[in-house]
Amino acid sequence: MKEKLTIVKVGGKIVEEADTLSQLLADFSAIPGYKLLVHGGGRSATKIAAQLGIESKMVDGRRITDAETLKVVTMVYGGLVNKNIVAGLQAKGVNAVGLTGADMNVIRSVKRPVKEIDYGYVGDVKHVDAEVLVSLISRGVVPVMAPLTHDGEGNMLNTNADTIAGETAKALAEAFDVTLIYCFEKKGVLRDAEDEDSVIPVITPDLFKKYVDEGVIQGGMIPKLENSFSAVEAGVSQVVITLASAIDGKSGTIIKK
Amino acid sequence: MKEKLTIVKVGGKIVEEADTLSQLLADFSAIPGYKLLVHGGGRSATKIAAQLGIESKMVDGRRITDAETLKVVTMVYGGLVNKNIVAGLQAKGVNAVGLTGADMNVIRSVKRPVKEIDYGYVGDVKHVDAEVLVSLISRGVVPVMAPLTHDGEGNMLNTNADTIAGETAKALAEAFDVTLIYCFEKKGVLRDAEDEDSVIPVITPDLFKKYVDEGVIQGGMIPKLENSFSAVEAGVSQVVITLASAIDGKSGTIIKK
Repeated sequence: MKEKLTIVKVGGKIVEEADTLSQLLADFSAIPGYKLLVHGGGRSATKIAAQLGIESKMVDGRRITDAETLKVVTMVYGGLVNKNIVAGLQAKGVNAVGLTGADMNVIRSVKRPVKEIDYGYVGDVKHVDAEVLVSLISRGVVPVMAPLTHDGEGNMLNTNADTIAGETAKALAEAFDVTLIYCFEKKGVLRDAEDEDSVIPVITPDLFKKYVDEGVIQGGMIPKLENSFSAVEAGVSQVVITLASAIDGKSGTIIKK
Repeated sequence: MKEKLTIVKVGGKIVEEADTLSQLLADFSAIPGYKLLVHGGGRSATKIAAQLGIESKMVDGRRITDAETLKVVTMVYGGLVNKNIVAGLQAKGVNAVGLTGADMNVIRSVKRPVKEIDYGYVGDVKHVDAEVLVSLISRGVVPVMAPLTHDGEGNMLNTNADTIAGETAKALAEAFDVTLIYCFEKKGVLRDAEDEDSVIPVITPDLFKKYVDEGVIQGGMIPKLENSFSAVEAGVSQVVITLASAIDGKSGTIIKK
């Protein structure tokens, strides 16, 4: 039987403020067994970019990454945010290692082709080296992954943290019984957007189709759940969408086959 | 017989400019066998700090690191400079991993006690985990170490790159036949400061004493050489002081027992 591995993806907001970061580090440290953290950092990047006189341009929530912006995200995601998390976890006895995709060639991507929009130095993930990650995790090391990859030609690329979490979970599903937890700003997928407590506990492919048909699930939640099902189809045991304060897995919405 | 390990320490100037970085990456990649790179990044830190409105205060060449400056060096050393080197080495087929002292708890330090000068968040190295580094190096991974450590209590600390190189070399001397190369702005230790070609090829402890007595070696070169002899005393096979463009080891000054 495969050993359990919990992959937690947490957005920028949580890791960028001292209070919420401190709580997250405590909660994440308390997760038993093998684990891996993927973090964002967009708010800090936007703030530092502004201080450096660089305007942040977003299209559909994605950052247009020109050469100057790439420097900022490399600094902020790979340095400031990542190392603060790593040092914080070490202080709690968690043997963390900060990684971008370039480190040990863990995630290689290709620069997104220019179509209607030129996203600039943004990477679409091509390959996750599961072997390197399994080797680290098996020795009790906890990878802390920044939303950065590389193209194998010397360039770092800005890469969506949800995508890194999803692709890493898929790549590790052969070696581990993987639970992928997406931290969300709500308690889970809500049946009624106005009612914070109307969390749908479990969504299967059949239920997903039904909820979409009924209009219960709509908008940006549809691609999020499609990505979750894609992870489950690729062998990830379950995906959980929940609050960062509930990563013990006892609440939230579980997406499974 | 121990296998050879080459540790190269390179200052900020070399790794911060595209041309010299490119040359360094080519030269470093060409070094045969096991290797490890330690880099600085002070010029970039000073520049980014200035752009962020943070004044860089230096005492005897050491940066006073207040809380805001710590954020800058964590970003610049751990993110911008480190990841550009790692991505550049990967492009040359060198399986680099960027590390600060916090990553896998590789280097733990203590915040420098306040005496006449309060250096702020500056770390004095207490322990280098040789086992972790040996494990990586033996698997063909090339550590690229940023001049940052941690205190084990959740804080990153700004740490002198020469010190990181020296302490890492000492810690690895039991496992490897270590050559430590300090890249320098001159061809080596000069017999005549006015003559760039008057490189002293070899300095032993006896010769060192003689040159100091004669006034041939003076000023800042004395502590640099004392540190080199301390590394040699601790088991490092030899220390080389040379130009970054000469890290093939065929020139420069060799410091040995």
